[in-house]
Amino acid sequence: MILIPFTGMAPLAEEIAEYLGVESRPVDWHHFPDGESLVTLPEGLSGADVAFVATLRDPDRLALPLRFAAVTARELGARRVGLVAPYLGYMRQDRRFRTGQSVSARLFADFLGESFDWLVTVDPHLHRIARLEDVFPVPAIRVATAPLIVDWIRKNVPDAVLLGPDSESQQWVGEVARLADRPYEVLAKRRIGDRAVEISVPESTALHRGTPAILDDIASSGRTMVRAIERLLAAGTRRPLCLIIHGIFAGRAFEDLAAAGAQRVVTTDTVPHPTNEIGTAGVIARAISELDLSATGTGSLQDLLGKKSD
Amino acid sequence: MILIPFTGMAPLAEEIAEYLGVESRPVDWHHFPDGESLVTLPEGLSGADVAFVATLRDPDRLALPLRFAAVTARELGARRVGLVAPYLGYMRQDRRFRTGQSVSARLFADFLGESFDWLVTVDPHLHRIARLEDVFPVPAIRVATAPLIVDWIRKNVPDAVLLGPDSESQQWVGEVARLADRPYEVLAKRRIGDRAVEISVPESTALHRGTPAILDDIASSGRTMVRAIERLLAAGTRRPLCLIIHGIFAGRAFEDLAAAGAQRVVTTDTVPHPTNEIGTAGVIARAISELDLSATGTGSLQDLLGKKSD
Repeated sequence: MILIPFTGMAPLAEEIAEYLGVESRPVDWHHFPDGESLVTLPEGLSGADVAFVATLRDPDRLALPLRFAAVTARELGARRVGLVAPYLGYMRQDRRFRTGQSVSARLFADFLGESFDWLVTVDPHLHRIARLEDVFPVPAIRVATAPLIVDWIRKNVPDAVLLGPDSESQQWVGEVARLADRPYEVLAKRRIGDRAVEISVPESTALHRGTPAILDDIASSGRTMVRAIERLLAAGTRRPLCLIIHGIFAGRAFEDLAAAGAQRVVTTDTVPHPTNEIGTAGVIARAISELDLSATGTGSLQDLLGKKSD
Repeated sequence: MILIPFTGMAPLAEEIAEYLGVESRPVDWHHFPDGESLVTLPEGLSGADVAFVATLRDPDRLALPLRFAAVTARELGARRVGLVAPYLGYMRQDRRFRTGQSVSARLFADFLGESFDWLVTVDPHLHRIARLEDVFPVPAIRVATAPLIVDWIRKNVPDAVLLGPDSESQQWVGEVARLADRPYEVLAKRRIGDRAVEISVPESTALHRGTPAILDDIASSGRTMVRAIERLLAAGTRRPLCLIIHGIFAGRAFEDLAAAGAQRVVTTDTVPHPTNEIGTAGVIARAISELDLSATGTGSLQDLLGKKSD
């Protein structure tokens, strides 16, 4: 297999390649001033399994170049062409909330499925979609970061009190808390308009005896976390820690967390950012190796993934 | 038919709609801070022929939202879904110039062909591709601006001496000159590296007796035009006029033309810009009406376009 990283993904791709004992080779993605792209692939793809590594923050900007890359890899003789998308994007718009809206979660999955033979991603943000296979027309594996987060908490914040920002997060935060053997609480969240949220902090003695650690899968505008930090501090807790899987940090979101009083912000490396402290290369490499692309034919790959993906 | 304009195309779409006696209805294209799009289509598409109007400058940014729009229109019951792309984009990379390169002209045409049932575009920049049908898997009509440019020259610059920037432009500039009944010359162009070009001006007495009008189909970086203006002025001509079909004007290209000494810059309205003086709504409307979507079934549409597209 040959890994081919897109913008910002070279360090992660090289780590994954090292785990797998394979090569990572650069793509040349040239941007013309009129907004067009020219994608030039590395040599030696003929007969090889190829995996592009691209994190899908800014998915609109990446979609067409990724399509070009995938089709060109096939033209150059690649055997199977996969996508490692540490952050997947577009999974939130999973139904038509208003007349006329595009259901982009499904349309984006279709688009990727037309381009790639398989997908590996890290903790996708799924609501009403139960499993990736329900929207992806090709084998799609989700890698879980919970064990990595548990490890990190055990090593770095042994007195953590975990906090889920809303009721949706209860199951996931509860599971991390159980594995880390730490208490947890879930905040009550109420959305007011497009960017404003109201958060309330439960009465909890545990909360005042440890370091509050707010866990969330995505921080995009950061509004939810900012309100949670403010409410916690107003309730008299220690300065909280923010533990985020995908640090999207649109605009000034990251600066806002610090300004609100976060003691520390920690993310995984699915989206490159100075706060990346939790590496996902190992778990991604394991998922790829379990695809067992070199050992299996196309038929058995599908079977294998059918067994793995639950 | 219902026309649905994307960013910047509302004025042109409304003009086209007026020619056709149909409606133009707005799309809502919402941009999230994480780089995702939410496309919301207008009501009343069920059973209708729909044509999106989107000029494909910045094609990477537009590709995915256009795909979402096209598929959603079909989900909402649209009969046929077409694309009016006054500027097409991506037609220059029509072969693999270096090992590993994507042949994006063909890949982009495939991508659009998967999304839309037909395409109408204005003077696409085709080199080795002889006809749009050679790359587009769906009916694709090219609209010619030559008659509009001829009209404009007759009315505004009756003493014009037309100039093609390179030998490639000879046929087109020669045709415009013949129809406008004006003399023409072709400059010799030599490309030195990625952005630098050298231009030489032929000896010509006609050139000094009229207003030089440099014609080109695209001005992107504007380097060719800038060098042509400089060379003409150095050869002692009057300040030249720049006549451009698609005014892409990347970065400071437009300012550079004025600084080099252009007397005036004139473009068609395929890419919105203050220099738009030549309207294409009429010729685009005629091309759409010749598709005769309401009167013909799917089979005869293909036949009709087969006859038209040469």
